[in-house]
Amino acid sequence: MSLTRALAEFAATPTPNIPDTTARILRLSMLDWIACGMAGRDEPVAQITRAMGMDEGGAEQASVFGGGRLPARTAALINGATSHALDYDDTHFAHIGHPSVAVFPAALAVAEAQGADGEALQTAALIGIEASIRVGVWLGRGHYQVGFHQTGTAGAFGAALAAGRLMGMDADQLEAVLGLVSTRASGLKSQFGTMGKPFNAGIAASSGVEAALLVSKGFVPSLTGLDGALGFGVTHHGAADMSALDGLGQDWLMDTISHKFHACCHGLHASLEAIATIDAPEQIDRIDVVTHPRWMSVCNQPAPMTGLGAKFSYATVLPMALLGVDTARLESYTEELCARDDLQALRAKVHVSEDESLSEMQARVTVAGGGEIREAFYDLDAPMSVDDKTAKIDAKAASLLGNRAEEAAGLVSTKAPAAELGAFIRG
Amino acid sequence: MSLTRALAEFAATPTPNIPDTTARILRLSMLDWIACGMAGRDEPVAQITRAMGMDEGGAEQASVFGGGRLPARTAALINGATSHALDYDDTHFAHIGHPSVAVFPAALAVAEAQGADGEALQTAALIGIEASIRVGVWLGRGHYQVGFHQTGTAGAFGAALAAGRLMGMDADQLEAVLGLVSTRASGLKSQFGTMGKPFNAGIAASSGVEAALLVSKGFVPSLTGLDGALGFGVTHHGAADMSALDGLGQDWLMDTISHKFHACCHGLHASLEAIATIDAPEQIDRIDVVTHPRWMSVCNQPAPMTGLGAKFSYATVLPMALLGVDTARLESYTEELCARDDLQALRAKVHVSEDESLSEMQARVTVAGGGEIREAFYDLDAPMSVDDKTAKIDAKAASLLGNRAEEAAGLVSTKAPAAELGAFIRG
Repeated sequence: MSLTRALAEFAATPTPNIPDTTARILRLSMLDWIACGMAGRDEPVAQITRAMGMDEGGAEQASVFGGGRLPARTAALINGATSHALDYDDTHFAHIGHPSVAVFPAALAVAEAQGADGEALQTAALIGIEASIRVGVWLGRGHYQVGFHQTGTAGAFGAALAAGRLMGMDADQLEAVLGLVSTRASGLKSQFGTMGKPFNAGIAASSGVEAALLVSKGFVPSLTGLDGALGFGVTHHGAADMSALDGLGQDWLMDTISHKFHACCHGLHASLEAIATIDAPEQIDRIDVVTHPRWMSVCNQPAPMTGLGAKFSYATVLPMALLGVDTARLESYTEELCARDDLQALRAKVHVSEDESLSEMQARVTVAGGGEIREAFYDLDAPMSVDDKTAKIDAKAASLLGNRAEEAAGLVSTKAPAAELGAFIRG
Repeated sequence: MSLTRALAEFAATPTPNIPDTTARILRLSMLDWIACGMAGRDEPVAQITRAMGMDEGGAEQASVFGGGRLPARTAALINGATSHALDYDDTHFAHIGHPSVAVFPAALAVAEAQGADGEALQTAALIGIEASIRVGVWLGRGHYQVGFHQTGTAGAFGAALAAGRLMGMDADQLEAVLGLVSTRASGLKSQFGTMGKPFNAGIAASSGVEAALLVSKGFVPSLTGLDGALGFGVTHHGAADMSALDGLGQDWLMDTISHKFHACCHGLHASLEAIATIDAPEQIDRIDVVTHPRWMSVCNQPAPMTGLGAKFSYATVLPMALLGVDTARLESYTEELCARDDLQALRAKVHVSEDESLSEMQARVTVAGGGEIREAFYDLDAPMSVDDKTAKIDAKAASLLGNRAEEAAGLVSTKAPAAELGAFIRG
């Protein structure tokens, strides 16, 4: 069976077999996505895409981060770009991309337009995310290396399935939706470092909604989709790795999604997790961090004096952790922070070195003082219990949403109808 | 200089050097585009995309074939799909695609939204078409062979430049527009034979308008665009043929655009042009047509009894021409036509044979009767005077638009403001 058909049948399954753990992780990603979208709503790419949408106006079908309701296709575009604006959302390393920011905007927009309940919304989002991860795996590393951004490309297929499922489509219709979105799925890695990167998430979401809307109105596209001689895979340097289908419908790649818990460069995260487990001595003489060589040129600024610089500095974030400054909070990274005497005093004691035997996801931190030496190692790839993840996402949501975090968590955990979630993200 | 930068500077030229002939050919393509859009407005892909747009509604910025005004981005999507629905619009063989249906919808929508005059609209459309042809040449045959549809891919870059020029952008802004549209330009050949093919023209037009709108609001994308290691070219199997820039701004590839003058398979056109030059004997005994071998399996149905079949049949269209049935008119191809006694009598006299020494664009027709033999040869690639083209486009417009053809021709030739053209296409 082709990948395209297999994913269509998967997404049409009336009652998919969803383990409790998977459903819980989906809800963690949903809360995380809401928090990232709310925190990103005033970023330039959010303001610019929202301004275009508001100029266009139209039927008030779906809510937009930061206010207003617009046609679902446009809301998906804006919310994708907005929720990825801070690059603080979840990642799936096998998919090589950011699943939530492509799929949730499509799912929520269509769910709101359809008046869907929370159960339908969450199931559709899970199926869309799972499918997008599997498309990403199927496309493979060569697709990414040559210059495509799976968040945009694979994401569009997942967004399309989430949208189509919410419209109640059967497998044949969903296959058509994948066939149609294959001619519009896009997204280049050349945009990294610009507003174009978060925009790629928005175009995936919007293209997915559009394909489902058109098929629902009778559009008959090619069914080629991803597979075959002229399919999206061959044309876009895809590897067509059919192991991407292993366990589809039984095992959930959603389970291995990664969340970011610190509002700084990913290269710093393992060291921050390590130092969090250390009961530091009162008097600190020296802080050592050992990291993978790759990070030495990425996030080892020794004495930055700006908020942006702080996000790329072991010598800043490790003192932040020791001083109790919230590294999950965007607003923590400031000029004022860099200028603090106590931070600068600790910064002078940080020594960074590299060790090729560590993976990029690992770090070792040692804190010495008063004759004591405390050491910790952390591996971001190590399994984390869902309870631990929940605590961390809750803390992140609190950092990003403040006193509205509890409300957001409640909407997600009680599976509130799409309309209530929409009202929340409008602010 | 990169292709991206060169095209941005070309499109920013305040007063481009446009020969009269080129301007006339642009206007022929514009009239042809209007006629094709009006004739295609009730095709399923037109109805479906228009229905989606009407559901969305929004600011009445730009007109839609068949009625209504919508945001420019949506109008461009619908009008691109609508005007390519019949596959009766123009073609550029070096570009390997259909330039007008990607660029005019973007240009007209933005021109209408901006309240532009006809001069600005026509210049922007010409620049967009010229740029899209050059991008198509730069991408080359490999891009097409692997499965991309230049109408959608190269078309998006042309649409983006037309839109940006109408917004009064300078070269730096236009370079940004190309950079942004590079992450959304798309379109697969797998859609051929389905509604997805005309849709590719719509997405090109819409993506072009969107990129220009966003840059006008301050969006800062990657400037990579088409060139370079992660650019659209490398990622999309482009040949990066820099001869595509030869003579840019001086010579116009627009001049070699091809128009369709018959509402049937392209393989029949050379024979129809040939027979049109023959002064047929009163009594016809035999009609011979010699064609390139490729067409024998494409458009050589000996005795079709449906309108669709008639469009793929030498034995039907040559008798049509002899009987004075208008082969440019869509409505000419019917069951009734196939059942006509006089047509069937002539059909029995048609003999089709192949000749490898002919090109795909050439045909030889012989009509014999009453002891006389009349022969004609036609090559679609042979140069045609602009006057001859004008006469043929006027006749085609009359076939497609009926008593509104003169009004359309007048709007184009007098360079009517975009608002008046918009009113016309609303019907």
